[in-house]
Amino acid sequence: MMKHFDKASIMEAESAFRRDFINCLSGYKSLNLIGTKSLKGISNLSPFSQVFHIGATPPLVGILFRPHTVERHTLENILETGYFTLNHVTEEFYREAHQSAARYSGSEFEATGLEEEYLGDFFAPFVVKSKVKLGCSFVESQTLKVNGTELLIGAIEHVWVDKKGLRSDGSLDLNLLGTVTVTGLDEYHVGKKIARLSYPKPGKELEEI
Amino acid sequence: MMKHFDKASIMEAESAFRRDFINCLSGYKSLNLIGTKSLKGISNLSPFSQVFHIGATPPLVGILFRPHTVERHTLENILETGYFTLNHVTEEFYREAHQSAARYSGSEFEATGLEEEYLGDFFAPFVVKSKVKLGCSFVESQTLKVNGTELLIGAIEHVWVDKKGLRSDGSLDLNLLGTVTVTGLDEYHVGKKIARLSYPKPGKELEEI
Repeated sequence: MMKHFDKASIMEAESAFRRDFINCLSGYKSLNLIGTKSLKGISNLSPFSQVFHIGATPPLVGILFRPHTVERHTLENILETGYFTLNHVTEEFYREAHQSAARYSGSEFEATGLEEEYLGDFFAPFVVKSKVKLGCSFVESQTLKVNGTELLIGAIEHVWVDKKGLRSDGSLDLNLLGTVTVTGLDEYHVGKKIARLSYPKPGKELEEI
Repeated sequence: MMKHFDKASIMEAESAFRRDFINCLSGYKSLNLIGTKSLKGISNLSPFSQVFHIGATPPLVGILFRPHTVERHTLENILETGYFTLNHVTEEFYREAHQSAARYSGSEFEATGLEEEYLGDFFAPFVVKSKVKLGCSFVESQTLKVNGTELLIGAIEHVWVDKKGLRSDGSLDLNLLGTVTVTGLDEYHVGKKIARLSYPKPGKELEEI
């Protein structure tokens, strides 16, 4: 049994209902902790569900920053220093990841107990417990006229990945790595693989690979 | 045991390895079938893993279109007609969804056997089997200078959702609805809920809600 909402009924709904509803409509979302450090040396950690693939050659990643966030330390630190890290979240520390969204004045690493680490000579902090860690540099950002959302593009400079989850063809086994996915604002899940499918061509039967 | 890749080693890897590797790095991705119809009346269906939340008030959605796709019927149809639909994919028809990415000259609905339907007087076709269906109108698009990726913004005009998956607070139970998530280019998963967590505040213990 399907329920229908038109734009008017969505706009007339309570704002909390609308926020939860619309945030769930795109489906499952990626979950990354973004690590940054200010020029004053204060580290920062914040969960993001709006990180996506922009290109492989060269390797690029995009992040959307909501316009009405009062404090945007993450965005400010990236623009100020040019560097940030992306860290996959696992079931082991998704609660600390969620808690790191609280409005702390100091470092979220200290506040949540998630240990930070510095790898090579990369400026921004990584999350020790993460199984997939990316070191990225700022490329460009632009403001979406429609509602002030900020789209930031980063170049992937370094990747550290747990060997057990890296397949020989380059793909990652995110089930094995325990990477968490999020729906809406606050609901966390692990993935359970159905199948991997062969490249689709007209008239050719799909195979599991 | 962590394995390290720097940018040089990523760029020197085989292109197929790099494509699979980089496409997996953002984490779990949403999966939607986008339905469109050309002015000539030919319907089109294509899977997208780059659909994301832009805003709730008003309800807006964003889609990234890769630059080097030879045929981009979906984007052309949206720009030509102003309308498209988003349809969550379930385990029941993820193979047909994957197959709809093959390069067909006619309608992918016919080619894959996925039944189309028209709801109300909305111009673009929906997928009958989908449990979450959005009717959207074109708002604006822009080309990302960095690599020619096209970012398209749509306004959510209509939503049809299976009542069994709609909670009273507006959030959707995507486990119950059977919505599928994708990693990399070709690997499909269902979600398995860990927990839903209360709003994070400094000094306040998180609760499951």
